[in-house]
Amino acid sequence: MEFGKNNTPFSKAEFSQRLAKTRVRMEQAGLDVLIVSDPANMNYLTGYDGWSFYVHQAVVVGADLEQPIWMGRGQDVNGARLTTILRDENIRGYTDDHVQSTTKHPMQFVAQVLRERGLDKGVIGVEADSYYFTGKSLDVLRAELSNARIEDAGVLVNWVRTVKSDPEIALMNEAARITEKIMQTAIDTIGVGVPQYEVAAIIQATGTRGVNGYGGDYPAIVPLMPTGIGTSCPHMTWRDEPFQAQTGTTIEIAGVRHRYHVPMTRTVFLGTPPDKMRHAAEVVLEGIAAALDVAKPGAGTRDVHAAWTRTIERHGLFKDSRCGYAIGLNYPPDWGERTLSLRSTDETILEPNMTIHFMPGIWLDDWGIAISEPLRITQTGVEPLCSFPRQLFVK
Amino acid sequence: MEFGKNNTPFSKAEFSQRLAKTRVRMEQAGLDVLIVSDPANMNYLTGYDGWSFYVHQAVVVGADLEQPIWMGRGQDVNGARLTTILRDENIRGYTDDHVQSTTKHPMQFVAQVLRERGLDKGVIGVEADSYYFTGKSLDVLRAELSNARIEDAGVLVNWVRTVKSDPEIALMNEAARITEKIMQTAIDTIGVGVPQYEVAAIIQATGTRGVNGYGGDYPAIVPLMPTGIGTSCPHMTWRDEPFQAQTGTTIEIAGVRHRYHVPMTRTVFLGTPPDKMRHAAEVVLEGIAAALDVAKPGAGTRDVHAAWTRTIERHGLFKDSRCGYAIGLNYPPDWGERTLSLRSTDETILEPNMTIHFMPGIWLDDWGIAISEPLRITQTGVEPLCSFPRQLFVK
Repeated sequence: MEFGKNNTPFSKAEFSQRLAKTRVRMEQAGLDVLIVSDPANMNYLTGYDGWSFYVHQAVVVGADLEQPIWMGRGQDVNGARLTTILRDENIRGYTDDHVQSTTKHPMQFVAQVLRERGLDKGVIGVEADSYYFTGKSLDVLRAELSNARIEDAGVLVNWVRTVKSDPEIALMNEAARITEKIMQTAIDTIGVGVPQYEVAAIIQATGTRGVNGYGGDYPAIVPLMPTGIGTSCPHMTWRDEPFQAQTGTTIEIAGVRHRYHVPMTRTVFLGTPPDKMRHAAEVVLEGIAAALDVAKPGAGTRDVHAAWTRTIERHGLFKDSRCGYAIGLNYPPDWGERTLSLRSTDETILEPNMTIHFMPGIWLDDWGIAISEPLRITQTGVEPLCSFPRQLFVK
Repeated sequence: MEFGKNNTPFSKAEFSQRLAKTRVRMEQAGLDVLIVSDPANMNYLTGYDGWSFYVHQAVVVGADLEQPIWMGRGQDVNGARLTTILRDENIRGYTDDHVQSTTKHPMQFVAQVLRERGLDKGVIGVEADSYYFTGKSLDVLRAELSNARIEDAGVLVNWVRTVKSDPEIALMNEAARITEKIMQTAIDTIGVGVPQYEVAAIIQATGTRGVNGYGGDYPAIVPLMPTGIGTSCPHMTWRDEPFQAQTGTTIEIAGVRHRYHVPMTRTVFLGTPPDKMRHAAEVVLEGIAAALDVAKPGAGTRDVHAAWTRTIERHGLFKDSRCGYAIGLNYPPDWGERTLSLRSTDETILEPNMTIHFMPGIWLDDWGIAISEPLRITQTGVEPLCSFPRQLFVK
């Protein structure tokens, strides 16, 4: 890596296109300026990559600015110089006495830079409900930018991200190879008496080592592996206890390449699964097949959800949560993009190169099962990003 | 794990003490109700542990409530039943159509529960600048709770966490053994030609496998390992490229036990370090020694900072950022507790069983060095939590 080089996996032309698409949406929303706080959106627009989102930072897009402006902690300026495509004058660091201080707030610095650049007027959009943009950030911006109207821009940039470019799809295909390897290794490792942490360790090492000579990036969610009664809830991690006979474990992981995620879930049963679990697995597989028959450009996310729901309800099962969401570039705490969801109230129409984690998990009172597929919408239909046996695994 | 059992590492009495201390601070701040959103604070007050903080959730403490109330996504209710010490009636789930929706917001549900319990009056504190409490969350609560006054409670619960109990220190001692093992393994693995991801993989696997038959938990920050010019910035992760000869690499990791972190940093140079780096290492070590001479109950955090600063400035070095912060229980994105910082403007007086990551990193224009120590303030002084050679490593 060198200062002043493009160290990102994308061309400068690709960043220009992303910026142009963002500006179109800003114009539609009547925004003169957009303050971006979501680390994934910051990366998407500038290339910025660093674990610095535990302090306040922002990328500002102006309708008339040639490049966005990155703002963050002073000690992260060199990281921005190394990882973004921005010129030095568009990288601005605040002094360290703004960090976790009760007297100074980093959004005061952001407002000051906006004033300097004449961007403190008109309508300024913020990502009001996005990660790392706090209530205090909003209050400080309102107080500091009294010449402007502050509006919630929602997940405007996330929507630009929803349709992937070919270079993005190429990275997701690389991530998918890592996903397959992680899941195979996890299934090979799990067994009665094996400590839960051992499987988690293998998953993490395999995901980071990658495949075919390229490494994996860290996932936005750590390995989830609820076991036994824990499978009644999807978001448990691991413990010291060994896996026990006659219990199911749901393994949810993601292969990641340059922050692009391909998640996948499988349930593994150690022993002889009860009939109700075998039956649920069959129903879930039938529901996935029904959903894949429907998913294609022009169909609605709600149509995919309906196909899934009709199938499982015919068999007396019920799931009241969404059965999928957009995936791609992300940072902790979520690999979902927070745009489209597969559910009855969603109004998204599918387009080619949308990428979705179809996640038909079923969580009942004291057990659950999940078999998922990461998908890409093609020109004419849909294809799984991974090639991995779609089944309940029994060991 | 079983529903209804205390599956946490702490006694119910310990949780009662935490709640009592929180109530004292609430009373001092004039708060009738406190809405807690920081996942570490939620865990601290109830035991809740799950990777569900990518959706809105809260723990509510009422001055007159016997137990806090946990609120989160419906599919995480079973996780709350498994991991918290709360009775079922104090675990409340919202429907899935609140998740990442443009029409319903989870804080509407939180407000509704407050109304049901008669807690929608008086002064309600929120953690206005804490992780995962968004601008939109604040606006929704203000709109929904118009009978109450919403105030910023700051990091009130974080301050309760700052002085550790003996059971917490015991977990941190377990974590420290993991920290030592991770760092030793990382230093053993790094070498010219070794891909960066290989060292990251080893670090993650070692941290999760733990030591002495107990496993490690996931760290709130992934392994940081800036190398070469990257060491001019502390927050870079890893890439595919192999480590190169005649470059330094700064490795920052943490061992974690039941979410309690003990972080540590060392710089490793592959080859023959330039004189300026050897000199900087000597100065840093002298600065650490000077700071440790000062750190004890009754001293101020600013005194420790001053001892460090005086030493390095005498040698012509300069660091404009804080040189340490409180550590302990945490979730991504930060293992710091966001309370005390070692810097000239901090007013904290040290007390026994405060735990601090003394992090005297120096980041210059195109290189840097960091050698850190996780510390516990004792009854009479200070002791490192880890036993690990304090030096610049040369391979």
